[in-house]
Amino acid sequence: MSQPLRLGIAGLGTVGVGVVRIIRQHSALLAARTGREISISAVSARDPDKDRGVSLKDYAWEQDAAALAVRDDIDVFVELIGGHEGKAKEAVEAALDAGKDVVTANKALLAIHGQALAERAEAAGRALRYEAAVAGGIPVIKSLTEGLAGNDVTRVMGVMNGSCNYILTRMESAGLSYEEVFAEADGLGYLEADPQLDVGGIDAAHKLAILASLAFGTQVNFDGIALEGIERVSIDDIHAAADMGYKIKLLGVAQKTGRGLEQRMQPCLVPDTSPLGQLDGGTNMVVLEGDAVGQIVLRGPGAGEGPTASAVMADVCDVARGLTGPVFGIPAKRLAQAVPASSELPAPYYLRMSLQDKPGALARVAAVLGEAGVSIDRMRQYGHEDASAPVLIVTHKTSADALRQALEAMSGTGVVASAPVALRIEAV
Amino acid sequence: MSQPLRLGIAGLGTVGVGVVRIIRQHSALLAARTGREISISAVSARDPDKDRGVSLKDYAWEQDAAALAVRDDIDVFVELIGGHEGKAKEAVEAALDAGKDVVTANKALLAIHGQALAERAEAAGRALRYEAAVAGGIPVIKSLTEGLAGNDVTRVMGVMNGSCNYILTRMESAGLSYEEVFAEADGLGYLEADPQLDVGGIDAAHKLAILASLAFGTQVNFDGIALEGIERVSIDDIHAAADMGYKIKLLGVAQKTGRGLEQRMQPCLVPDTSPLGQLDGGTNMVVLEGDAVGQIVLRGPGAGEGPTASAVMADVCDVARGLTGPVFGIPAKRLAQAVPASSELPAPYYLRMSLQDKPGALARVAAVLGEAGVSIDRMRQYGHEDASAPVLIVTHKTSADALRQALEAMSGTGVVASAPVALRIEAV
Repeated sequence: MSQPLRLGIAGLGTVGVGVVRIIRQHSALLAARTGREISISAVSARDPDKDRGVSLKDYAWEQDAAALAVRDDIDVFVELIGGHEGKAKEAVEAALDAGKDVVTANKALLAIHGQALAERAEAAGRALRYEAAVAGGIPVIKSLTEGLAGNDVTRVMGVMNGSCNYILTRMESAGLSYEEVFAEADGLGYLEADPQLDVGGIDAAHKLAILASLAFGTQVNFDGIALEGIERVSIDDIHAAADMGYKIKLLGVAQKTGRGLEQRMQPCLVPDTSPLGQLDGGTNMVVLEGDAVGQIVLRGPGAGEGPTASAVMADVCDVARGLTGPVFGIPAKRLAQAVPASSELPAPYYLRMSLQDKPGALARVAAVLGEAGVSIDRMRQYGHEDASAPVLIVTHKTSADALRQALEAMSGTGVVASAPVALRIEAV
Repeated sequence: MSQPLRLGIAGLGTVGVGVVRIIRQHSALLAARTGREISISAVSARDPDKDRGVSLKDYAWEQDAAALAVRDDIDVFVELIGGHEGKAKEAVEAALDAGKDVVTANKALLAIHGQALAERAEAAGRALRYEAAVAGGIPVIKSLTEGLAGNDVTRVMGVMNGSCNYILTRMESAGLSYEEVFAEADGLGYLEADPQLDVGGIDAAHKLAILASLAFGTQVNFDGIALEGIERVSIDDIHAAADMGYKIKLLGVAQKTGRGLEQRMQPCLVPDTSPLGQLDGGTNMVVLEGDAVGQIVLRGPGAGEGPTASAVMADVCDVARGLTGPVFGIPAKRLAQAVPASSELPAPYYLRMSLQDKPGALARVAAVLGEAGVSIDRMRQYGHEDASAPVLIVTHKTSADALRQALEAMSGTGVVASAPVALRIEAV
């Protein structure tokens, strides 16, 4: 058996404690699987005296993560501090510069500084691995980079923020407004300290940026993501979408358009019979599509102590087995700049609007759509008691530009009682 | 860049041709991802003159797979012949003995001779990889052995024969009998030359045996699988199960029972709202459960040129990257003998029977169940026009032994019009 692999773990929150637990409980199993003993040399966290429910007395204690990162008695620096600036970044850089391999669960760090860190790791000949950064316990990085290595990847997409999916499915099942469920989720501790990271789609977009880089061989480009959170999703739209056979999901999609890389994180409609449509609650789902394999769907817990620690340990075991490939699947120096798509690929859209109860109102709307080149697949007008009639339209595939043009012209018709809601329908 | 990795491909059916296509079309991508050029030196197949829709003129041709396997100009022998005896086995052994790495899609070979081949490969210090042998394009071997490396795996299960799942879902959607759909599927070429491999559950059981070995660190033990095909699944049971909120699937399950390893491949009921219950048609699904990660669900195409070739290429790329770990996750010499479970873990069961239309008939049945210690969760008796009444029962968790005892006693009641059907309900 080879030399032990010695870890230094920075950050002893839920995930850090989960990693310590696995290493203590499964030492024989881990050694059998990797051919090496996996041990912990040292740890660091803010408060050394806090009771974390797991014994830490065998490990040296460092106040400072960066000091931990460069200790002589560690081979792998496990960064579980979080945040894309400050201590986490400094410590990861220090570890790489000191010739340590790095395993992290830090999606923000990778999404913002991934390119620079990848170049740094590869220059040092070290591994920088981050399975836990995307979709928690689901081995999605591994499936994409290794499982689909023979594919030209055509699209990656997924529901990658459990809190948002919880909110949307809870709105539907309980018939509550976004504000009501948000308050509930916040009270239950389901949201990040800054809830905007969740409901604004930022956390999920960090993950999408990482997947897009791996899928398409491009430099990670978080700023290139068209980002919209779930704050404006109304219970009316959830009900109306259900009526037409759809669910609303905060869906991240990355695909090549022929005119650049399209990266979107936004509320979308998906068929309620599809795996994405059937995904309830806090579970995550990632869909990977390649020219050879077709479509692969991966589903599992996107957060929590056990699942995230499981993903961290997958990376640790890979490092123990000597896997130190390129950080983003191909050498960082060869990653192309991601050129944002000049326009999104055409898609069908869902439109909800209120029409004034006048003769010819529907004809006017249909005419405006037709003039913009947007053709109608299905339409429903509902019975009503007030002066305006709820109307739902599902269009055929249309460009986002044509739709925008139609929506702008809509207000000029004088028959639309309120601004129409438009949501993309993603083919899944 | 390192030396090219040179392949010899034996077997040029659908999958072999798919592999050749990927290597021709994606040579630059593969080189970028693995750091090596991946090339084909030689191929072998029965008929050299057949038009396979892909150019083979750049490759040397061998009549004999074993001769191909030992050629000096190949590094990796790709076995796509199939079958667990004869040419495939000989050629794989020859390749390993000649110091070649081996990639295969041959589930039967691994399920029957996996232990001996693993010992042979490891003694030679070579890789023997077989991602394509289980669930086609789904990277399930990789997810289990690498993605869940930090877990004590508690259960693996799945729908791993697309033809059976096609037949069962088609029976339900079209209201046809097993015999009718079987004839249809056979006519469409959906079944193996020996259809018993599909509908008898043998093909799926080969895959389960492999997964169980990887999950539990035991020697692959195909003979230890309790095996039942789908031939006796009736349209009546499919309808009745649907009525109680279930789907019938040919489900493979492997789990530790505390008294040995339970391996079953049999028709089971699963909730119709679960991912397994929602799996229609020829798609495969594998569920992996570990103590840390909880539950991971993987879904994708289980067969076909592209998906299977994609999985073969994942292995080829891993070999190119230098991954040559133990064949079954831990060194073959350390794999424990799989002790078959002395009894299955308790589960709820679905029972369907016809009761004679006599006063007290239902009470007699309930009494027999109660005496055997089987308690009833839900029961439905249906209206009827003939002399016997259809009755459905869902039991609480019960041991298979208690249920067997109850079913044996049932005939003695004198009120059961025909032998009851009993199907296990798997918690998912």
